[in-house]
Amino acid sequence: MSLVVVGSVAYDGVETPHGKVDRMLGGAATYISLAASYFTPVKIVAVVGGDFAEQDMELLTSRKIDVDGIERVKDGKTFFWAGVYSADMNDRTTLQTDLNVFADFNPKLPQSYRSAPYLLLGNIQPALQSGVRQQMNGVRFTGGDTMNYWIKDYRGELLETIKDWDFLLINDSEARQLSGDGNLRRAAAKILQMGPKILVIKRGEYGAVLFTKEFHFMAPGYLLEDVFDPTGAGDCFAGGFMGYLAGKGFTPDTGKMDWTELRKAVIYGSVMGSFCCEKFGVDRFRTLGRGEVEARFQEFKTCTEF
Amino acid sequence: MSLVVVGSVAYDGVETPHGKVDRMLGGAATYISLAASYFTPVKIVAVVGGDFAEQDMELLTSRKIDVDGIERVKDGKTFFWAGVYSADMNDRTTLQTDLNVFADFNPKLPQSYRSAPYLLLGNIQPALQSGVRQQMNGVRFTGGDTMNYWIKDYRGELLETIKDWDFLLINDSEARQLSGDGNLRRAAAKILQMGPKILVIKRGEYGAVLFTKEFHFMAPGYLLEDVFDPTGAGDCFAGGFMGYLAGKGFTPDTGKMDWTELRKAVIYGSVMGSFCCEKFGVDRFRTLGRGEVEARFQEFKTCTEF
Repeated sequence: MSLVVVGSVAYDGVETPHGKVDRMLGGAATYISLAASYFTPVKIVAVVGGDFAEQDMELLTSRKIDVDGIERVKDGKTFFWAGVYSADMNDRTTLQTDLNVFADFNPKLPQSYRSAPYLLLGNIQPALQSGVRQQMNGVRFTGGDTMNYWIKDYRGELLETIKDWDFLLINDSEARQLSGDGNLRRAAAKILQMGPKILVIKRGEYGAVLFTKEFHFMAPGYLLEDVFDPTGAGDCFAGGFMGYLAGKGFTPDTGKMDWTELRKAVIYGSVMGSFCCEKFGVDRFRTLGRGEVEARFQEFKTCTEF
Repeated sequence: MSLVVVGSVAYDGVETPHGKVDRMLGGAATYISLAASYFTPVKIVAVVGGDFAEQDMELLTSRKIDVDGIERVKDGKTFFWAGVYSADMNDRTTLQTDLNVFADFNPKLPQSYRSAPYLLLGNIQPALQSGVRQQMNGVRFTGGDTMNYWIKDYRGELLETIKDWDFLLINDSEARQLSGDGNLRRAAAKILQMGPKILVIKRGEYGAVLFTKEFHFMAPGYLLEDVFDPTGAGDCFAGGFMGYLAGKGFTPDTGKMDWTELRKAVIYGSVMGSFCCEKFGVDRFRTLGRGEVEARFQEFKTCTEF
């Protein structure tokens, strides 16, 4: 079933120990949409400038992503971000952030998007995330991401926004910040009290943990022999997770939740995050096939089953 | 089947965010033996001073640990270590190290130990580890631990020692140091070329990964609601891992290795490490029952199966 993805479409400049690319397609919504497109039809909402290249739009449409929701501001420039990674790639330093047209992003959903049952809100201002959800007609499952900036300086607005979400996706330091608790398990319990029915805490190379009030599920990170560029890995996790659930028509209603599907969704998220790191930017998705996705899912089983 | 455990028996002073204990039973061989004793008969080899308390010896014998191999130097003092943990308990600072009788530790195995089929060598000088192995009559399975100090300053001696081992247990930074490779999977491949048939890399709260030339297996860390004191958790992992294999009469012969048992051994290692953190020092093992061990093993299954 259709999944609406809202967030940034950008150009990135990235330097890792494996090389340097001055300008390439990036942005959370791009990564999320590409990853989700392996599982379900995707409709993207974003804003780009007049500089946005036709070939980049074509990469999205080649994955059958509906781009009607991408607003093009002809006399503006696309969001640009540049950063450099540490030697072990566990840290990165931002070198440049030019919001450009993204500074005035006020997402408007095309009519054809509004009845989609699944919604994934990338990391933007919480009030904008709420605004998008209000434009939808009876969405079945809403998930979203956020970041330290909104947790710290827009706390009230953020809490108001996530209280109706089915699914919140954050990393471990954000979970500690949001809950005020240093212990992951207690932090998760506190966040589940804030509204979200499902919480996934990303732990970078160490995998992810999914929490509901009933159970938790731990997925290790896939051990790659070479990590070329971790940019977008967390977004690809989100795309794989939500894409899989949307493809299965998953219902988040308490009492009816299919835990087996939720566990599988975490693994598919990890699978898509791992592929993302194998090449620079979105390059891995230019060649990645559904068969490879399935093979890696099975590899996860082999590496964790006992 | 019997497991011989060689290493330190000590007194520790430990401070964590949950409290402070000035002097309590500790030492790698103590933790390893206690954890292993839940699965198999254990024979410990160590040295203590005249100050070693009878009640501490009784804790070992209460777990049916054979203490004939503990040498008591009447006019000496037991190894003492003191340290303080960081707020998140991921780092610790050593405040005091008094080797005392441990400085001249030259392990001699009682005759009754020499035909035991399983041997676990705690972190001591590699030449001493080799010496112990030579005292054994046809040991079936030898495993051991080491540390950054031996990897850096005794490299030749260490490589000579581990080349005949069936099992090497180290943490991730030690694996990177020993192999000279920052990537865990490539580091593991290089270390397996050095001799050990089985390598387990511990990743602290993030669990552990077992590598052989044929496969690898990833176990997440158990999510505790309260970590009181992580001292000894890695040793308890070792004890649970080797203890389980010894209890099952596991054979490390290439081609005949039972991978299912190896995977279970990693989980039992994680189980014992997790219990260790629940109280200060060895206190959790004063009350821990076999049923609780089994219940947590099942909990690991529930939290990882998909």
